[in-house]
Amino acid sequence: MTSIEQLPTPCLVVEERLLQANLDRMASQLSALGVPLRPHFKTCKNIDMLRRSLEGQPGGVTVSTLAEADACARAGINDILYAVGIAPGKLPAVCERVRAGISLKIVLDHPDTATAVAQYARREDLALDVLLEIDADGERAGLPPGHPDLLKAAAILAEGGCRVTGVMVHAGGSYRCRDIDCLKRVAEQERVAATTAAARLGAQGHSISVVSVGSTPTALFAQGLEGVTEVRAGVYMFQDLVMAGLGVCRVEDIALSVLAEVIGHRRGRGEVVIDAGWTALSRDRGTADQPLDQGYGMVCDLEGRPVDNVIVRSTNQEHGIVTGRDGAPLEPVDWPIGRRLRILPNHACATAACHAGYHLIRTADSSAQWLPRCQPQLLAGNRVEPGQAQGVMP
Amino acid sequence: MTSIEQLPTPCLVVEERLLQANLDRMASQLSALGVPLRPHFKTCKNIDMLRRSLEGQPGGVTVSTLAEADACARAGINDILYAVGIAPGKLPAVCERVRAGISLKIVLDHPDTATAVAQYARREDLALDVLLEIDADGERAGLPPGHPDLLKAAAILAEGGCRVTGVMVHAGGSYRCRDIDCLKRVAEQERVAATTAAARLGAQGHSISVVSVGSTPTALFAQGLEGVTEVRAGVYMFQDLVMAGLGVCRVEDIALSVLAEVIGHRRGRGEVVIDAGWTALSRDRGTADQPLDQGYGMVCDLEGRPVDNVIVRSTNQEHGIVTGRDGAPLEPVDWPIGRRLRILPNHACATAACHAGYHLIRTADSSAQWLPRCQPQLLAGNRVEPGQAQGVMP
Repeated sequence: MTSIEQLPTPCLVVEERLLQANLDRMASQLSALGVPLRPHFKTCKNIDMLRRSLEGQPGGVTVSTLAEADACARAGINDILYAVGIAPGKLPAVCERVRAGISLKIVLDHPDTATAVAQYARREDLALDVLLEIDADGERAGLPPGHPDLLKAAAILAEGGCRVTGVMVHAGGSYRCRDIDCLKRVAEQERVAATTAAARLGAQGHSISVVSVGSTPTALFAQGLEGVTEVRAGVYMFQDLVMAGLGVCRVEDIALSVLAEVIGHRRGRGEVVIDAGWTALSRDRGTADQPLDQGYGMVCDLEGRPVDNVIVRSTNQEHGIVTGRDGAPLEPVDWPIGRRLRILPNHACATAACHAGYHLIRTADSSAQWLPRCQPQLLAGNRVEPGQAQGVMP
Repeated sequence: MTSIEQLPTPCLVVEERLLQANLDRMASQLSALGVPLRPHFKTCKNIDMLRRSLEGQPGGVTVSTLAEADACARAGINDILYAVGIAPGKLPAVCERVRAGISLKIVLDHPDTATAVAQYARREDLALDVLLEIDADGERAGLPPGHPDLLKAAAILAEGGCRVTGVMVHAGGSYRCRDIDCLKRVAEQERVAATTAAARLGAQGHSISVVSVGSTPTALFAQGLEGVTEVRAGVYMFQDLVMAGLGVCRVEDIALSVLAEVIGHRRGRGEVVIDAGWTALSRDRGTADQPLDQGYGMVCDLEGRPVDNVIVRSTNQEHGIVTGRDGAPLEPVDWPIGRRLRILPNHACATAACHAGYHLIRTADSSAQWLPRCQPQLLAGNRVEPGQAQGVMP
């Protein structure tokens, strides 16, 4: 029942009301398109929030690390897509988890990876479920949908006894859009890449049940998702300044902020020093390439209302320097020592990754509830024991 | 006894041999200058490494958060300088720790903060030890040494029953140097700012016993430290590419790297995809302003030898894109799927902050020892109990 005035700064604050509105918006968008959501755990990394995002959905989730997969499995969430191209060195860890009963789907985009996976799975006498990663825009990883290596990789997997169950596309290119038409176009491009690749694999005899697309911008602006079986998204839960800059949300939809306190003034320069540096805000400068550069974050009052044109202009490890957007000096009298502020993040994933958890501000009574994030990486020596899918990390 | 081939990627690796050489270099530099070291915990955040850095030193340490202070106190390290301007909202937490027996020195640079501290300390009937932060170069926080607020703040503290025991300067400007002469000049500027402010306070009747300066570059290049009583530094333990770019160390002195694995190739572009993105490398681009831009890090082989002119050019959350320095394409055959690499960090503090701990590669037998980092922030609800200085966090 701690109130926001008493929380230790710097810390992460999430407004329950805004979080829920963001979840509702995505659910209703995908419901209208008739496609279920496989929420991505990489942004929130908290099980309570993930469960909220699963309401009304089939129950499968997306993760970006095995540590996230372990946290989900411990919570009884068993249908897990590990949506980063598998490193051969991680195959022992993957197989341990599959043997322990976790339904863990892996992803790859290269015949050599397919060979490594097929060989390892055969040696372990396990039939792994594999999705092929497809590239729609050259922004991250994946095979172009028409590339010969697609069928080659699938054949290697099938011959090795693995199940090629589908395709996965992430339209990273949506982050480069500057208007809604572009977002709609990129969403369609993502859908076409996924369904084209799925059709090629199907024609080759593979039993394709998963056609997975997603990014927050394309999920929210797709006009139709024919042929798609699931959508992945993570940032949408919180939204952030990059998304607002793309037109994907409004600034007032951003559910996540960093609570900070004024600790000094840089004399004669109209600059205010706060106790949130890059360890609290992250070094992410995702708005630097957008028309409105938000520095290291937009400054709001304690209630979350933006202070006109005031941003965190630079950061040290534990210090943030606050100024007007164009370097305009601030009046020290408006920014007294001890004043508390909230900073909206450029990139929710990066800012949240700086913190051990969230203070969820409950809508009913404004109390704060602590919601921890799972470990950032798989720690050495943490091995899942057979039959122990729910207790894999200390 | 895990070997580096079996560590889970991405992870942090520290070479014991290089760590020790970096510690020895700083110890011998400061020994020659006749000034003790108060090592900064903010970079390593691991108690074993901190203890190594304390060998032959008086035993006091520097921290940048109360969570770090708690970790030190739990380990029996009691003489702690909390070297970030105190936020009034943190005074209850500070006083709890002082009452619990921790010798915690705080820092401030504003008469209003002095008023808040004096009032709180008087209410709590505690005499807090306070250092005044001095600004040598306008790069972070602090009062110019000749500023009238210096004596004003000190007077407010003394009247309130607090002890003004010294001054603290951090020469952030050293990070903007481009040659050794500049580093030497900035070190002298830092010394002069500190001793000038100390002399003014002493003349005013304050009993000044601490004249604290520091940053890794100025500590290693100071030519003389007359009047200085202690030096603070943290990055020196690991060193990094920013330091190498400044000429503070050589690339081969960098003790910290991120272990990663090749997971794909971007076809037709000569780009290699690794499983270390910004969650493992950080978003820090500290070398972007230096003559040699290292992207998101310099690529080395598994033994730590740099691969000529190959860097991590861009990052997604869990993906790193590796290319030649000028975008020169790489030959896929040289970068097979599953190849393990080590990435040297731009900024050791930022990269280390992405991870829960280190794998220390022992010089004696090349085995890897797990060394955890302390929590990033003070968690809500963690309160020190009186008389319980060593057990303040879960």
